[in-house]
Amino acid sequence: MQIAILGGTGDVGEGLALRWGYDTDHEVIVGSRDTERAREAASSYESKLAEHGRDVTIEGAKNPEAAAGADAVVAAVPAYHLTDTIKAVADKLDDAVLVTPAVGMQRDEDGFHYNPPSAGSVTALAAGAAPEDTTVVGAFHNLAAGRLADLDDDLEIDTLLVGDDDDAKATVADLADDIEGLRPLDAGGLANAPEIEGITPLLINVAQHNDGLHDLGVRFE
Amino acid sequence: MQIAILGGTGDVGEGLALRWGYDTDHEVIVGSRDTERAREAASSYESKLAEHGRDVTIEGAKNPEAAAGADAVVAAVPAYHLTDTIKAVADKLDDAVLVTPAVGMQRDEDGFHYNPPSAGSVTALAAGAAPEDTTVVGAFHNLAAGRLADLDDDLEIDTLLVGDDDDAKATVADLADDIEGLRPLDAGGLANAPEIEGITPLLINVAQHNDGLHDLGVRFE
Repeated sequence: MQIAILGGTGDVGEGLALRWGYDTDHEVIVGSRDTERAREAASSYESKLAEHGRDVTIEGAKNPEAAAGADAVVAAVPAYHLTDTIKAVADKLDDAVLVTPAVGMQRDEDGFHYNPPSAGSVTALAAGAAPEDTTVVGAFHNLAAGRLADLDDDLEIDTLLVGDDDDAKATVADLADDIEGLRPLDAGGLANAPEIEGITPLLINVAQHNDGLHDLGVRFE
Repeated sequence: MQIAILGGTGDVGEGLALRWGYDTDHEVIVGSRDTERAREAASSYESKLAEHGRDVTIEGAKNPEAAAGADAVVAAVPAYHLTDTIKAVADKLDDAVLVTPAVGMQRDEDGFHYNPPSAGSVTALAAGAAPEDTTVVGAFHNLAAGRLADLDDDLEIDTLLVGDDDDAKATVADLADDIEGLRPLDAGGLANAPEIEGITPLLINVAQHNDGLHDLGVRFE
């Protein structure tokens, strides 16, 4: 499978690229607004994978070139870049599943809080920005990027998926399941995204208030 | 310690009463709007505990009588009864910590959704209804009642605590920690409650969409 990671130079993008590079034979393409930065990141991911004994080729390209021909396009950009990023690749999405892991947060003196856009969730914002015939799946919202990028970490955490197209959701569930230690769980339709996105600020709050807990993930048991 | 469980005839109240009855020597008092219902529930909990080899006395009383003299008062009532229930016991709270596990949810065709009151969270609603000098701690929001009431279930889940008074929060953390298999985690101040309460509808959505998962709890790892 060909996976484009838009904003793949960021920390979540790095984590996903490394995991798919390490655990699968999927073809991973790192996208960025800047070709050179994309190539540099791809090259550094190749080096990290080589250090872990995996001889993998990871391409780097401008976001629209990365998206072209991909089966899954992951918009691993901050919420405030999401609409622009999706619009920039809109005519390259073809039959690709668009995957959105972004979350909206704000911080005040009490801690981090979920701050959804008027669309209801950042996942819904992505769906609204996507071409009408593109299927959108929300996934990978609550993953600690540092831990994802640490290939020595066993993860053993869950990721929740939402989407209104069952086939697209199954495709992304397989991609999640391909990552060792990550368990995909179906949380229903796109309308169920807010409660998932709200977990991310909570994870930060919990890590800040409890000694010995950091880079938290969540597990449903 | 003396623990009053207001609305202790309900399913969350039952679960907490059974767990504290089984795992601790705390004095548990089941409160209800109706004395007879409270006594019947208390008696049935005693029987269940006896079946598990624990000879424990659980009292039943009207909510205000249950609250009088308690060190911790758990308002285990649905969100829409919370304000009335707290007002009814307000002059009995003295130095008790008021514990609020209630969550606001609504259901539509997509699933369950978090539906906070205008106070920002149900936990904040409880704090607003309590006397000014009463300390309020949000806890036990995301526990599957059926599993809590099943003393053969090992739990192995977390409960998140929020509160603006560290001593009160520590008291409730101890009460949570007293329950075998339940790990209390500090999630900061009362303002951080919405993201916790939002997990409850999510747990229901996840259980509905994944075979073999039900009565879910959450674990931060």
